[in-house]
Amino acid sequence: MLRTNTCGELNKQHIGQNVTLCGWLQRSRNLGGMTFIDLRDRYGMTQLVFNMETNAAICEEARSYGREFVLQVTGKVAERSNKNLNMPTGEIEIIVDKVVVLNKAQTPPFTIEENTDGGDDIRMKYRYLDIRRNPVKEALLLRAKVAAETRTYLNLQDFVEVETPVLIKSTPEGARDFVVPSRMNAGEFYALPQSPQTFKQLLMVAGMDKYYQIVKCFRDEDLRADRQPEFTQIDCEMSFIEQEDILNMFEGMTRHLFQNVKNVDIGELPRITYAEAMRDYGNDKPDIRFEMKFVDIKSATAGKNFKVFDDAESVIAICAKGCASYTRKQLDELTEWVKRPQIGATGLVYLRFNEDGTLKSSVDKFYSEADLKVWAEKCNATPGDLILVLAGGDSRTRKAMSELRLEIGSRLGLRDKNVFKPLWVLDFPLLEYNDDAKRWHAMHHPFTAPKPEDIALLETDPGKVRANAYDMVINGVEVGGGSIRIFNKELQQKMFGILGFTPEDAQAQFGFLMNAFEFGAPPHGGIAFGFDRLCSLFGGADSIRDYIAFPKNNSGRDVMIDSPSTISDEHLKELAIRVAK
Amino acid sequence: MLRTNTCGELNKQHIGQNVTLCGWLQRSRNLGGMTFIDLRDRYGMTQLVFNMETNAAICEEARSYGREFVLQVTGKVAERSNKNLNMPTGEIEIIVDKVVVLNKAQTPPFTIEENTDGGDDIRMKYRYLDIRRNPVKEALLLRAKVAAETRTYLNLQDFVEVETPVLIKSTPEGARDFVVPSRMNAGEFYALPQSPQTFKQLLMVAGMDKYYQIVKCFRDEDLRADRQPEFTQIDCEMSFIEQEDILNMFEGMTRHLFQNVKNVDIGELPRITYAEAMRDYGNDKPDIRFEMKFVDIKSATAGKNFKVFDDAESVIAICAKGCASYTRKQLDELTEWVKRPQIGATGLVYLRFNEDGTLKSSVDKFYSEADLKVWAEKCNATPGDLILVLAGGDSRTRKAMSELRLEIGSRLGLRDKNVFKPLWVLDFPLLEYNDDAKRWHAMHHPFTAPKPEDIALLETDPGKVRANAYDMVINGVEVGGGSIRIFNKELQQKMFGILGFTPEDAQAQFGFLMNAFEFGAPPHGGIAFGFDRLCSLFGGADSIRDYIAFPKNNSGRDVMIDSPSTISDEHLKELAIRVAK
Repeated sequence: MLRTNTCGELNKQHIGQNVTLCGWLQRSRNLGGMTFIDLRDRYGMTQLVFNMETNAAICEEARSYGREFVLQVTGKVAERSNKNLNMPTGEIEIIVDKVVVLNKAQTPPFTIEENTDGGDDIRMKYRYLDIRRNPVKEALLLRAKVAAETRTYLNLQDFVEVETPVLIKSTPEGARDFVVPSRMNAGEFYALPQSPQTFKQLLMVAGMDKYYQIVKCFRDEDLRADRQPEFTQIDCEMSFIEQEDILNMFEGMTRHLFQNVKNVDIGELPRITYAEAMRDYGNDKPDIRFEMKFVDIKSATAGKNFKVFDDAESVIAICAKGCASYTRKQLDELTEWVKRPQIGATGLVYLRFNEDGTLKSSVDKFYSEADLKVWAEKCNATPGDLILVLAGGDSRTRKAMSELRLEIGSRLGLRDKNVFKPLWVLDFPLLEYNDDAKRWHAMHHPFTAPKPEDIALLETDPGKVRANAYDMVINGVEVGGGSIRIFNKELQQKMFGILGFTPEDAQAQFGFLMNAFEFGAPPHGGIAFGFDRLCSLFGGADSIRDYIAFPKNNSGRDVMIDSPSTISDEHLKELAIRVAK
Repeated sequence: MLRTNTCGELNKQHIGQNVTLCGWLQRSRNLGGMTFIDLRDRYGMTQLVFNMETNAAICEEARSYGREFVLQVTGKVAERSNKNLNMPTGEIEIIVDKVVVLNKAQTPPFTIEENTDGGDDIRMKYRYLDIRRNPVKEALLLRAKVAAETRTYLNLQDFVEVETPVLIKSTPEGARDFVVPSRMNAGEFYALPQSPQTFKQLLMVAGMDKYYQIVKCFRDEDLRADRQPEFTQIDCEMSFIEQEDILNMFEGMTRHLFQNVKNVDIGELPRITYAEAMRDYGNDKPDIRFEMKFVDIKSATAGKNFKVFDDAESVIAICAKGCASYTRKQLDELTEWVKRPQIGATGLVYLRFNEDGTLKSSVDKFYSEADLKVWAEKCNATPGDLILVLAGGDSRTRKAMSELRLEIGSRLGLRDKNVFKPLWVLDFPLLEYNDDAKRWHAMHHPFTAPKPEDIALLETDPGKVRANAYDMVINGVEVGGGSIRIFNKELQQKMFGILGFTPEDAQAQFGFLMNAFEFGAPPHGGIAFGFDRLCSLFGGADSIRDYIAFPKNNSGRDVMIDSPSTISDEHLKELAIRVAK
């Protein structure tokens, strides 16, 4: 080793020892008689001291080193006179008597500091420098920790990690596949997996019983902010289980991760149905760090000649605790906010429950104080609260109100990144109707089992059929989702029929799975967690980008290596493809 | 859970308990008054008993079940009268009082037994049935165990698992890349990584210090037997180290794996140089489970008018202990064996050191008994041994002798699959001359550092330059290899020059790495292990195929899912490519 210690481990106990450290020059301070250098490595930072009086030559030399020089220094650990108790090595410094410059460095294009002066583009281009920054480094270390703890838990539970193939077969269902031309099979293509779904089901048919994999998946979609063409899943499947077993197993995993990564006890996870989530939060991934549930006040508003409410399919209120003091200006601004196209409400009605017990609303013309009292009671409002009301078509109103609720939650500071409130959302609809394609789509995927008691509805009212499907939601983010699978060939064929596959299409695309089901498929089900998102959530970040070592930008480019790029004509020829002009 | 226990865990302690098991019907025996069924799951096999006398209905029903039916059975654990102490559950059986057929099964196309009647092709097509067989299942469980123990060791050593991207940039150096057309960047392609080499070096520049990843890699090569287009590596890199540190760290990992997976103490690993390996074994991946080192007897054969030896660049002998009794027929057959084109020798000379102390050779015409005695002494032969001699051009003769040595080792039973003899091979040449391309190629890869003391030779005699490169070899198989890297931009540019890259080519292909080296690259080095091969070695298998859940055949096809396959014209159009007719 070129070092005896790392830059993160020396403390008072090491005083007097001779040590050798390696690392990068973080900063240098020339104080005339002395020069201080902070030397940084993955493990921390250590202060080096060079003294003009005792060793002028080496001190002069040290003053010539630039930021990010790679140094090997040897010296004696000494107690600092000016201690910094905020850092683990803050009580000591190294009196240096030898330095080797292992490598020089150009001045980096942005500062390698907690908060850098570099914009996103330049940070991506020099990602290897960005990772030297503490927040990015810590994000990657956190990711490794989450992966390790995931494996610890699942291995203990007798899950087997099995690698499924990356070069698989293209399936038109769902998002677009990335494809790979096959040189040995001219004119044919592999596809990169959007998920190992069919393989994990085949592993259950194969008797592997409990499978998991932390695995790269691929989707060739137009990238919205914070989507990546390649992403990582914690992918799991179990046999001989019921939904309850999966919920318990992965609630256990989530608890283990929070305990061991964040040192947080999340307790038991609440469970709500999809229907309840839509009723109470207008959202199938509710943020339950705060209450502020929807209150349906339609009946309390009816018959008072307020046409907007009378004509509305739904009139929904939320109660913003302690917000009665909102000024007219603030309320106007909120009204503008809900009327933005992204939110899509046509207007906002408010009701102030003043501290003095009086009620004041924007629709006083239509509703008496007694009428408004009923609203307030329905909303469990108390003096000082503000009730906000949206009205209109049910689905649109709930969607808009969900956004408003989250916005108010944020404004009230109720969405603390250090508070974690996971829950299960259950009983998703099996199917959703696609108006464009004029057919039913699988809400989860085509292998999801309907609830046994709803199977009869498949023929008569497909939209009413609930699935044995579940999502894990944390702080308003869907981090995991899964289902109990259909393991019976007839039911699977019926599902393909409802989804508009001809028997031939179904056979061509999923034949191998349906055939496998003929040879003794066990009851099975599973779940997949979005690993990048889970890590960013643990890290308290909004973006997944810093939790991926080498992410791509919104055009799917890696600007550091400048990829994708053209390939040679010879290579194209070997692959039997041409670039269309 | 649909079960209270697995099929592998019940024993005498459970006698009298009521249990529910789930699994597959392995076999059924109708003995008239009784029917026995062996029920199998991932964890083992349990005997079920159905009695005509006590429960005729259920017994009759059980007799109708076919192989691989999926059953859920409930009953009482009872002591067997006829114990099978070879299996963990062999002392008990289940007196069944309830059976649910969870799924029926068609008769599988081959037997689901330890040794199946199915050929390779059909086993691949129905891989999900093949995995039900014990040897394949055990191979996959072993793989998971090796992965888990690898992570345990490396995590303890402070390595960070970092995922590097799968969609990267094509580089013409080395094997052919698989490519992925980019829809969002028409006419451009991603490449799938042949290894994360440049990314792991960038992670060192980024200060990650110790990196590892168990990672899929891809090579579009014509598949020889036992090569896969996608394969898995244990990929590692460390900073601020010297070669000795890498050797110790990964010798430690190998020791940990053997101890914890195989319960074998492999002791300290021998180290030999590439030059010694070629001298003693004619092979840079020697199988040292047995000695039988090469002996250069050229000087002892000279000047006796045997033109074959006199004209030969090299005359090399090995001593096959105890083989003097080989018959003339056996020796003729060996001679034919070495003359096959794959081996390429022109003939084989033998010398029998008979039990009675006499010497008998195939070249008695030219050599006296005293001459032959010298050969025998050089080979440390004792009565009963057989000396085998090949002669000719040095490199060709060593190659042929290496094959002969391995063949004799196998015939003598010296290559026991349960004996493991790892070693390090060091000091590989940095470069090898490619006669076709008329230029130097990197023997390892273009980032490998020359030994500092050999750098001067780069200008004068590039073929003599040794690299700081090392391979780990186990039982004649190269399982890992790596090197100390060049971390200095000037030396890297010089290497690219020697390898025939123009500065523009080097900049276009590796510019991002060379640029990174300008910002303070630390000294670093690493290693990669072939994970599939390592697993098959641990499992004592010759082929890697059963250590991969869903392998491809020699045409790169997955015959189970029938991939690769054609994709739609619409998809091709979106990707801006055409299939060349």
